[in-house]
Amino acid sequence: MQDNLWISGVNEIISKESLDKRLKSGKKLRIKFGVDPTRPDIHLGHAVVMWKLKALSEMGHTVIFLIGDYTTKIGDPSGRNTTRPILSDAEIKKNAKTYFDQASKILDLKKVEVRYNSEWFSKIKFNDIINIAGKFTVSSILERDDFSKRLKDNVEVGLHELLYPLMQAQDSVELKSDIEVGGTDQRFNILAGRELQKKVGQVPQEVVLFDLLIGTDGKNKMSKSLDNYIGITESSESMFGKVMSIPDSMILPYFELCALYDEKRLKTVRGELDSGKNPRDLKEKLAMEIVKLYHDEKSATEAKDAFVSQFRDKKLPDIMPEVELSGNYELTLLLIELGAATSNSEARRLIEQGAVKIDEAKITDLKAPIAVHKGMVIQVGKRNYWRIK
Amino acid sequence: MQDNLWISGVNEIISKESLDKRLKSGKKLRIKFGVDPTRPDIHLGHAVVMWKLKALSEMGHTVIFLIGDYTTKIGDPSGRNTTRPILSDAEIKKNAKTYFDQASKILDLKKVEVRYNSEWFSKIKFNDIINIAGKFTVSSILERDDFSKRLKDNVEVGLHELLYPLMQAQDSVELKSDIEVGGTDQRFNILAGRELQKKVGQVPQEVVLFDLLIGTDGKNKMSKSLDNYIGITESSESMFGKVMSIPDSMILPYFELCALYDEKRLKTVRGELDSGKNPRDLKEKLAMEIVKLYHDEKSATEAKDAFVSQFRDKKLPDIMPEVELSGNYELTLLLIELGAATSNSEARRLIEQGAVKIDEAKITDLKAPIAVHKGMVIQVGKRNYWRIK
Repeated sequence: MQDNLWISGVNEIISKESLDKRLKSGKKLRIKFGVDPTRPDIHLGHAVVMWKLKALSEMGHTVIFLIGDYTTKIGDPSGRNTTRPILSDAEIKKNAKTYFDQASKILDLKKVEVRYNSEWFSKIKFNDIINIAGKFTVSSILERDDFSKRLKDNVEVGLHELLYPLMQAQDSVELKSDIEVGGTDQRFNILAGRELQKKVGQVPQEVVLFDLLIGTDGKNKMSKSLDNYIGITESSESMFGKVMSIPDSMILPYFELCALYDEKRLKTVRGELDSGKNPRDLKEKLAMEIVKLYHDEKSATEAKDAFVSQFRDKKLPDIMPEVELSGNYELTLLLIELGAATSNSEARRLIEQGAVKIDEAKITDLKAPIAVHKGMVIQVGKRNYWRIK
Repeated sequence: MQDNLWISGVNEIISKESLDKRLKSGKKLRIKFGVDPTRPDIHLGHAVVMWKLKALSEMGHTVIFLIGDYTTKIGDPSGRNTTRPILSDAEIKKNAKTYFDQASKILDLKKVEVRYNSEWFSKIKFNDIINIAGKFTVSSILERDDFSKRLKDNVEVGLHELLYPLMQAQDSVELKSDIEVGGTDQRFNILAGRELQKKVGQVPQEVVLFDLLIGTDGKNKMSKSLDNYIGITESSESMFGKVMSIPDSMILPYFELCALYDEKRLKTVRGELDSGKNPRDLKEKLAMEIVKLYHDEKSATEAKDAFVSQFRDKKLPDIMPEVELSGNYELTLLLIELGAATSNSEARRLIEQGAVKIDEAKITDLKAPIAVHKGMVIQVGKRNYWRIK
């Protein structure tokens, strides 16, 4: 990987000058990267930063995976933040293993320093916390976008939430971080680390923020909960199909952030788009490139062939899950039975959207009684099939 | 002391109904009273609450002196709050001894439970703090008058300052306090204790707030730094003189809060004031009563006689400090030499105010050269004399 690639897709650097100086100093730098132990599934959005870390690691620097286990063990005492569930030690360990198994598809983990912040937070004294807190003003913390917005909207902010940025800042101090990398959503917390390092007499870490990858819907940031994600351990077929489903506007960003194209190759893609080349062909190329990164060339070719025969040639796939079922069903209940929908309302929505076909005929009647028979094929959306056996 | 006296001068009770129920239950209640270990000097303002504590103690309840040593050992890391100096263990111990020596003039200390909050805060874990903080919202803490005022005026509030009310609240939880008493300036912190107790499943403490005693200037709350205070260990003469110096508007409040007059006797005083009795005579009575509380009847009578002969009869006092001094002095330097002023600017102010007399003649010329001679009497203010020997 070329050195300059590590910085492509960057959104902001604080500060550029000092970062360049440090990179050129020849010193082995300490690169901090925070890992959320509640989210063990790595998707292409997370992978953007991990490829940068790989490049930095190959440049000879030390990449540190900092696992925020202490915070996670506390959970959110107010019970308001359901995205921060309380995890046991065993669950954290299990999630970390899952995470590392996936991360090893990108990085050489033997070269990564793995740390857990319980190392220092389980021992910290109250007076240390008062001392850290004393280095921040209330107004500087409340400036954070989501806090100020919530206070303005009269949505409660728990007092403990103000302490989380301090924890992340203290992590930087403990790790003596030279550079912290993250998505733009981490800007505030990473800057807090820089502040605290300054105040305790450390050279403040450089901050490198990357654009958040937009999901396959072309609208929202990629996330599992929005179901617009591509997991890095997905099968080559699934990965290929999902890339093919992105809107055309995402072709260039995905070539840059997910296929790791450098400026020269991006220029070619841009030229092809501008000259009216069929976006479908460019997406096929993009999908091939991405599948190759996480699988191999052969799998990529097979995934492409399967995709073409299934969708472009409108054939049913050869292989699909077979389900043993018989009798009469309301269509909504049938979808739930198959696992195609998790609730009545989801099933209804799918049917109303015209996403449901039975034996290749679209069914939009919610109450249609379905007589299930052997060999019947139920299709939901573009890529989900079940055959009754 | 009569039982009903303990509540006279009260400003607010939360909640009256539940307080009455607890007091009538026959149970031995735990009465929390916070002691600031940076302020070992007890004046009549502090004494107001301590007399109430004495009454509660004599009613059979347990008075707890909670010494906030942990907070004091931390100090204020932002360096903004100079009223919270960092004290060493030895200083805290020394201050506590000074405090108890004075408090024993009022309370039977053998019956008082003395606790230090380092007992729990030196051992508390970060996750406990997060848990406590999670029980409060940012907006509820920022509602506190001084915080909201400072934020409005763009005066910085350190993030650590938000944690102090939680500490005081946690003190109530640790002590299983039934009632917390304090001045009205402690309202917010004491209510936080009530909140936290509720949230951890304890019966919330009753809150009893007393009016803050106005100082001898009749304007500001009594405090050492404003020099409008009467210390409870001052000599009978000094105490008597200071009480005589209060404005007439303070006569009734001082009879109630400092001389511990009950409603019946207050009514008499009120009647005398209304019927045009010379306030000076009422102040003499008040001063006698207060001196008796901290000294004895004989000292009170002597102090009165000394005062009358010195001021009412305009005689110089028989006894005054004698100082060995000779030569020529600028008046400002002479005042500093005598200890009547601690700085040039203070000396200048005293002279300009006309507070300085030499051999009974007022001197207002700052630069007047004074030839010091044996037997010369220097008077500063109403009650400070020096004789040159």
